[in-house]
Amino acid sequence: MTYTQIKYAVADNIATITINRPEKMNAFTNTMLKEMCDAFDQIDADDDVRAVVVTGSGDRAFCAGADLTPEGGAKPFASSDPVEDYSDPRVRDGGGKLTLRIYQCLKPVIAAVNGAAVGVGATMQLPMDIRLASDTARFGFVFARRGIAPDAAASWFLPHIVGRPQAIEWCMTGRVFNAQEALDGGLIRSIHKPDELLPAAYALAREIVDNTAPVSIALTRQMLWQIPCADHPMEAHKIDSRIIYNRAKSGDAAEGIASFLEKRDPVYPDKVSSDMPDTFPWWEEPVYK
Amino acid sequence: MTYTQIKYAVADNIATITINRPEKMNAFTNTMLKEMCDAFDQIDADDDVRAVVVTGSGDRAFCAGADLTPEGGAKPFASSDPVEDYSDPRVRDGGGKLTLRIYQCLKPVIAAVNGAAVGVGATMQLPMDIRLASDTARFGFVFARRGIAPDAAASWFLPHIVGRPQAIEWCMTGRVFNAQEALDGGLIRSIHKPDELLPAAYALAREIVDNTAPVSIALTRQMLWQIPCADHPMEAHKIDSRIIYNRAKSGDAAEGIASFLEKRDPVYPDKVSSDMPDTFPWWEEPVYK
Amino acid sequence: MTYTQIKYAVADNIATITINRPEKMNAFTNTMLKEMCDAFDQIDADDDVRAVVVTGSGDRAFCAGADLTPEGGAKPFASSDPVEDYSDPRVRDGGGKLTLRIYQCLKPVIAAVNGAAVGVGATMQLPMDIRLASDTARFGFVFARRGIAPDAAASWFLPHIVGRPQAIEWCMTGRVFNAQEALDGGLIRSIHKPDELLPAAYALAREIVDNTAPVSIALTRQMLWQIPCADHPMEAHKIDSRIIYNRAKSGDAAEGIASFLEKRDPVYPDKVSSDMPDTFPWWEEPVYK
Repeated sequence: MTYTQIKYAVADNIATITINRPEKMNAFTNTMLKEMCDAFDQIDADDDVRAVVVTGSGDRAFCAGADLTPEGGAKPFASSDPVEDYSDPRVRDGGGKLTLRIYQCLKPVIAAVNGAAVGVGATMQLPMDIRLASDTARFGFVFARRGIAPDAAASWFLPHIVGRPQAIEWCMTGRVFNAQEALDGGLIRSIHKPDELLPAAYALAREIVDNTAPVSIALTRQMLWQIPCADHPMEAHKIDSRIIYNRAKSGDAAEGIASFLEKRDPVYPDKVSSDMPDTFPWWEEPVYK
Repeated sequence: MTYTQIKYAVADNIATITINRPEKMNAFTNTMLKEMCDAFDQIDADDDVRAVVVTGSGDRAFCAGADLTPEGGAKPFASSDPVEDYSDPRVRDGGGKLTLRIYQCLKPVIAAVNGAAVGVGATMQLPMDIRLASDTARFGFVFARRGIAPDAAASWFLPHIVGRPQAIEWCMTGRVFNAQEALDGGLIRSIHKPDELLPAAYALAREIVDNTAPVSIALTRQMLWQIPCADHPMEAHKIDSRIIYNRAKSGDAAEGIASFLEKRDPVYPDKVSSDMPDTFPWWEEPVYK
Repeated sequence: MTYTQIKYAVADNIATITINRPEKMNAFTNTMLKEMCDAFDQIDADDDVRAVVVTGSGDRAFCAGADLTPEGGAKPFASSDPVEDYSDPRVRDGGGKLTLRIYQCLKPVIAAVNGAAVGVGATMQLPMDIRLASDTARFGFVFARRGIAPDAAASWFLPHIVGRPQAIEWCMTGRVFNAQEALDGGLIRSIHKPDELLPAAYALAREIVDNTAPVSIALTRQMLWQIPCADHPMEAHKIDSRIIYNRAKSGDAAEGIASFLEKRDPVYPDKVSSDMPDTFPWWEEPVYK
């Protein structure tokens, strides 16, 4: 697939997705949705990609929300289709297709929020693992100010990230807020000067890539997102016992212990494409219906 | 219903419930429970009410807990009834009846905590959406110091609001703590001088009322409280796709976009009483048994 | 059971478990696991124990993780057993056996983290109720740096304690971090000079023991850990209504109210060993399979 609204590049085991409609404040379209999902398919299939950074092109916006103009082709809010059966896939919110795709990703995803992040530009960050922002960033869960409601499964993600009280205040006021309020509220983990944002994002990606085993990271990502939803920690114990039993016999564990004892950088042999434990996935992926 | 232990007033689309037994530190009784539930019924039925502020009368207490005297009529801790079958509705904790009623509310509820808030005076705030306090406020989840256990479904609400470690420390020590500890622990979102507390609460209510669509707010409130309990974000995606599909065709969405593009205040046409989407409620309300 | 790798002592109604292999940085072994589980059995059975403090021997480590040497006998990562059926109990992760045992405890558990707490030394703290650390403490969820994955049901516990974003960053980087980062991230509740750590832990234990009813604490502990997992606060309302109905008729409630009104220290009559309400436990304990 040739990308027209994003840029995709891989360097030093880190993929970068750049949302690339700077003249439109990187507003979200159906084309962008398809290109981003395709990029995440590439990321999961490519063992050379060990971490992902998502940012916006230009210095004004990360993504200023759904493109509400006809040119955007985004069929804003899915309003134009004449379907009546709610299980019709055309009812599906585009933002949710993207966030569910990111949720399934096998690599760490870091958001480098370089400017305005409003509507789906805010909610698409939520299934990413780590969020950093420039001091020029602005955020807004503005849905109630547009007569709609939170999109992109944000009603699930946002309270899990910032807690219910903060999620409720941001979504009920619909206010646009700055990076400091995002930091204080737990939405982002740090604020950076604009020209120091991407270096900080890459430094975090490096810390992961240089030290950890790719199979371990893929497992850890799904464990930390999914297992807290279980009713009892016994569920975690069942899953992690099987995973540890499997990984303990792996070359990765031998290398992890050896490199630790020898105080040297590790070189893990196992690959996400071929060496996931046979108990992975331990869940059945739900379908839209 | 004529209220004797609360005051109820509506002005500028904001309802105010004032707990009104100042000579008794606004201690909670069965009468107060019935009056507060009735007030919330009024609030949900009245499209002119777009936000709610709950506060206490006088400058000493928000609500100092259950009235333990016979005069209170609160049958403290439900101890006096001779029922044996636990599904008997007389076993039901009164504080829980109130918090479950507030949980179902269709309007934003803001607590303006003007003084002592102990026992059910602390737990009744938890299903409210936003909590502000005066610098004279005190809080206490004192149940273990009275030989009982957390009431009013606080064992569910409190960890969802402040996280398990803070909830555990407050409920296990049973200590009474000040506004600063409440702020640091995430129970309240801001501290105000006593005479600036209600203005701050009304300003927040105004921010919601002046900018957002009532139907959007009613949807957002239930989405953010309920959907995080789902095991997978797909559940959110199903619900929000249907809601957005419905709301996108609404006059509210047209007005939301038009007022945004025209940089003017919005006037949303839809009402909570008549214009909720046909997929609302998407859940089946559980019953006490 | 004679303990060889922990010390166990009870004084003034507070039990202390001291992890006691200082020459091995208190590294975790199968023997230590059995001894700690046995100590928690003693704690639950002994009405004289009303709170627990867990700390490490020496000034270097709380517990530096699994003992990876043959001498440790820990069968690190369960790798040596030739079982094939994942429900075989030999697949079970030892760290998870410990954290599930602590999860079921009927007394408050306070971690006094006096030094390095890495791997299972970090994850064993998570089902404890309150965590304090010395300014010399270090923490590390290092599993991805050893080629394995989070152990001890930490994928459930850690996000419930510090939230998903912080849990993800710590587990994905695998970094070792200091007490200040642990405090900022919500893992611990306070930092102390080394010689002030145990006094602070005992002071918190005292605050609980001197003021609260043991049966109330046992109920509160299980309520706050378990009930937030329910899909709806109605579940909490059912459970707490029955508990309050029962406890309200108890001598503990009478003493709690009387001592409060008389402004004196309470002396609660009921015991955890004999006076738990008949609705406790209200859940069915899951089994490993």
